[in-house]
Amino acid sequence: MAKNITTRAADYSKWYQDVIKAADLADQAPVRGCMVIKPAGFALWEGIQRDLDRRFKETGHINAYFPLLIPVSFLAKEAKHIEGFAMECAVVTHSGLAKNEKGDDLVVKNELEEPFVVRPTSETVIGHMYAQWVQSWRDLPILINQWANVMRWEMRTRIFLRTSEFLWQEGHTVHETAEEAQEETLRMLDVYKSFSEDFLATPVLAGEKTRRERFPGANHTYTIEAMMQDGKALQNGTSHNLGQNFSKAFNVSFEGRDQKREFAYGTSWGVSTRLIGALIMTHSDDEGLILPPRIAPTLAAIVPIWKNDDERAKVIAHCNRLLAKLCDDAELEAARNHLGQRNLFTVFYDNATSQSITLDLRDAMRPGEKHFHWEQRGVPIRFEIGPRDADSGKLVVKYRTGAEKEILDLGAITRDWFDAKLNGIQNELYERALKYREANTHVAATKDELYKTLETKGGFVRAFLAEDDAFEEKVKADTKATVRLIYQPRDMRAKSGKCIASGKDCEREVVFAVSY
Amino acid sequence: MAKNITTRAADYSKWYQDVIKAADLADQAPVRGCMVIKPAGFALWEGIQRDLDRRFKETGHINAYFPLLIPVSFLAKEAKHIEGFAMECAVVTHSGLAKNEKGDDLVVKNELEEPFVVRPTSETVIGHMYAQWVQSWRDLPILINQWANVMRWEMRTRIFLRTSEFLWQEGHTVHETAEEAQEETLRMLDVYKSFSEDFLATPVLAGEKTRRERFPGANHTYTIEAMMQDGKALQNGTSHNLGQNFSKAFNVSFEGRDQKREFAYGTSWGVSTRLIGALIMTHSDDEGLILPPRIAPTLAAIVPIWKNDDERAKVIAHCNRLLAKLCDDAELEAARNHLGQRNLFTVFYDNATSQSITLDLRDAMRPGEKHFHWEQRGVPIRFEIGPRDADSGKLVVKYRTGAEKEILDLGAITRDWFDAKLNGIQNELYERALKYREANTHVAATKDELYKTLETKGGFVRAFLAEDDAFEEKVKADTKATVRLIYQPRDMRAKSGKCIASGKDCEREVVFAVSY
Repeated sequence: MAKNITTRAADYSKWYQDVIKAADLADQAPVRGCMVIKPAGFALWEGIQRDLDRRFKETGHINAYFPLLIPVSFLAKEAKHIEGFAMECAVVTHSGLAKNEKGDDLVVKNELEEPFVVRPTSETVIGHMYAQWVQSWRDLPILINQWANVMRWEMRTRIFLRTSEFLWQEGHTVHETAEEAQEETLRMLDVYKSFSEDFLATPVLAGEKTRRERFPGANHTYTIEAMMQDGKALQNGTSHNLGQNFSKAFNVSFEGRDQKREFAYGTSWGVSTRLIGALIMTHSDDEGLILPPRIAPTLAAIVPIWKNDDERAKVIAHCNRLLAKLCDDAELEAARNHLGQRNLFTVFYDNATSQSITLDLRDAMRPGEKHFHWEQRGVPIRFEIGPRDADSGKLVVKYRTGAEKEILDLGAITRDWFDAKLNGIQNELYERALKYREANTHVAATKDELYKTLETKGGFVRAFLAEDDAFEEKVKADTKATVRLIYQPRDMRAKSGKCIASGKDCEREVVFAVSY
Repeated sequence: MAKNITTRAADYSKWYQDVIKAADLADQAPVRGCMVIKPAGFALWEGIQRDLDRRFKETGHINAYFPLLIPVSFLAKEAKHIEGFAMECAVVTHSGLAKNEKGDDLVVKNELEEPFVVRPTSETVIGHMYAQWVQSWRDLPILINQWANVMRWEMRTRIFLRTSEFLWQEGHTVHETAEEAQEETLRMLDVYKSFSEDFLATPVLAGEKTRRERFPGANHTYTIEAMMQDGKALQNGTSHNLGQNFSKAFNVSFEGRDQKREFAYGTSWGVSTRLIGALIMTHSDDEGLILPPRIAPTLAAIVPIWKNDDERAKVIAHCNRLLAKLCDDAELEAARNHLGQRNLFTVFYDNATSQSITLDLRDAMRPGEKHFHWEQRGVPIRFEIGPRDADSGKLVVKYRTGAEKEILDLGAITRDWFDAKLNGIQNELYERALKYREANTHVAATKDELYKTLETKGGFVRAFLAEDDAFEEKVKADTKATVRLIYQPRDMRAKSGKCIASGKDCEREVVFAVSY
């Protein structure tokens, strides 16, 4: 058992913090509610960006950059949106600082005529720009994504999951017809689902939000929801059909094929650094972080074991033979000129993704400490090589998922072997998470059953429910659970069932859960 | 002549704006002095990020993310730094908005105890974090880079070159010894130089700044300086040796190998979106943007020419044969499922860089308009294919650099041919810019010569000059020119010369220029 990590059973919330600390992913910033994303954590975000950005481009999107500051007057233009976003945010009121009279401190100067907010999301400023860019149906669709930082002044924060500043991507598109906007909204929901499942090895439910849970200013909000290991839901991403709401507020209109002027149909969709929190809570265990290989910055660590200089020399020679089996000559050569962290010899396994294999040559650490180091950082594969292995041409392979260790001949190690192992681990993590979700998904036919299941079992609870804000409100007040999504027809248990609120037949199945 | 672009001779500044508009690179934001980077412009920044990030990682650096907001008290800790940066910046004083009494407008609420500034640069907040992360010499070096947005409330702005918000990268490293910090400072200067020359095809001088031009808080500032087509200098990037200044201000100290406590030695280095401005002003001509192939998002455009449906069918078939010669089957297949801008059939030539070839199938545009479109966007190669080409199996190749057009057999087109052409264009642009700089670099032996040369010829003026703040100040007041850099010994005309200020022998040669 790791001494620096509280078990999940003892305190799930403390466990989460301990895993982040042990894996060196992030730190508290000197600004309330903000985080510093440390290199090990940021590498996860880079993996997410790389994979998602490719998916965006493959579906015809392009990136752009819009300003950080938004005039306060913009927020007032879309009534529902303002209720949702304008209230708790960072407000810029001055454009300078000056020394005070004594010269020992700084005071604000140059009050602005109109204050700005640091963007909590960019629908308003992007709407303002699109109004200028769109004249004719020929200018449509516009399919733009932005990678950016955003701020919402959150009162209760939790690292990665809810922070005042976070990183995200926000897609903003406008279309000629309502149908195209709806297609786009669902297309991006699909992109998010396959990204979550293929890349993060995180199974998700995908479906629409109820009216109560909709994005402020959207006609329809779709979501992907994952189950954490404590049975709670986590919203991994959302895709919104904005209809003509923002187009009307910002006058994004075009001359149609019929020469008539019409407002464009909009969508927006986003995922954020909270995905890193979801990743941690989906896969990790009481020993620390577990990373799916596709996102792991370090794919494997090689830990040499020696007692004296003679042993050291032959063990390291054997480690280098292993590296030569796995890595390109050019990458090995580049790594030799590499600076980085001293005594961690890091070779790119895949130059395009910067994923690497590290030979841990730190002299001051014992092998046990090194195992511990790589285990807590979630590295999928560890190779252990001692003097007897060097003599016999063997090596020990250990897996972070807990699979049985293997003793192999060096000759058996190839890139194909390694890739197959990584794929196997990726699938194993996905299947494990799916199994967990299935085991913790229940069914309720009545309100009593719903309450009892939420109280005694937790997890996801499926029920038939017609649109009913008051019932959702009541359930939330009583149990903290909310409707996470409405199932898509293909995912429903049956075509219809008795509504848990009214007892009448209805054709809408939802899932309740307490969420992050 | 392009009617929508002022010539360089007529008005260089207007030409610059016209080129940006014609190439659709950026737009004015609704926030004073800020810009919207449109997709065509942002693709250039993505190219810069991709190439530089690889170079950073190859030299052992890793990325992280630090908070946007910096407590005002942090700025007061490093005296010189504050003079340089604390004064004109966006200040956050409140954490929310509320509706006014009438309910028809928004007013600020929740005044903060301590205001924050939107980061103008991050030495202070990163120093604060490093103080917590560094305990022992074993924790060093820390080699972190951040890609981020920053704000400085600029009064006179010019798109890409000087905007209130801009995007950049800022490297921040701390080291055990002064020597290592100096090595790092020069290493990153070299990275910037080779990046500028190899990737942007922009020759640069590299050297140290004089005391007057130093970064606030640095002991030594190094720069790369490019010459624009109007003879002015543009600073393309800087690398600073911070010594122990920030470490002392923020208490970044460590227990050394000798068990004594010491302050770490720091560096910082950055380039920004102003590189896009430099790129435009280095290569473009009176017809619009010219892009070096390594950064061009679209490598080639195929323009089909037809008069009727029969011709259309056979011309497009021939265009598709050309695409099949240049692009992978898988990419062609993916492009067919691609959405993107209607009637622009865009195929990735290189999936890793997202660089593409576009077949322009827009029906509503005449071929002449299409040529114009791609020319003004700086696309390196255009293929023109008409009905007679389709019959004879030929095609016309035109080059954005102005090189003689070619009529080739389709059979002659291969990926190797294409790559060689692109490399040729890259080199041609570099050589052209280098020749321009050489032709506009002059020598001055006296102050009178310096003034006369700056007045009559402009460009770069080389002179020997000992450290002399007052002389630099005077030259700037009289001529607007500043010392751009001190030559490195290997680049000097001679080991010593007569100082242009004092007339005494000195061993320091500098270059004067008016700069952006």
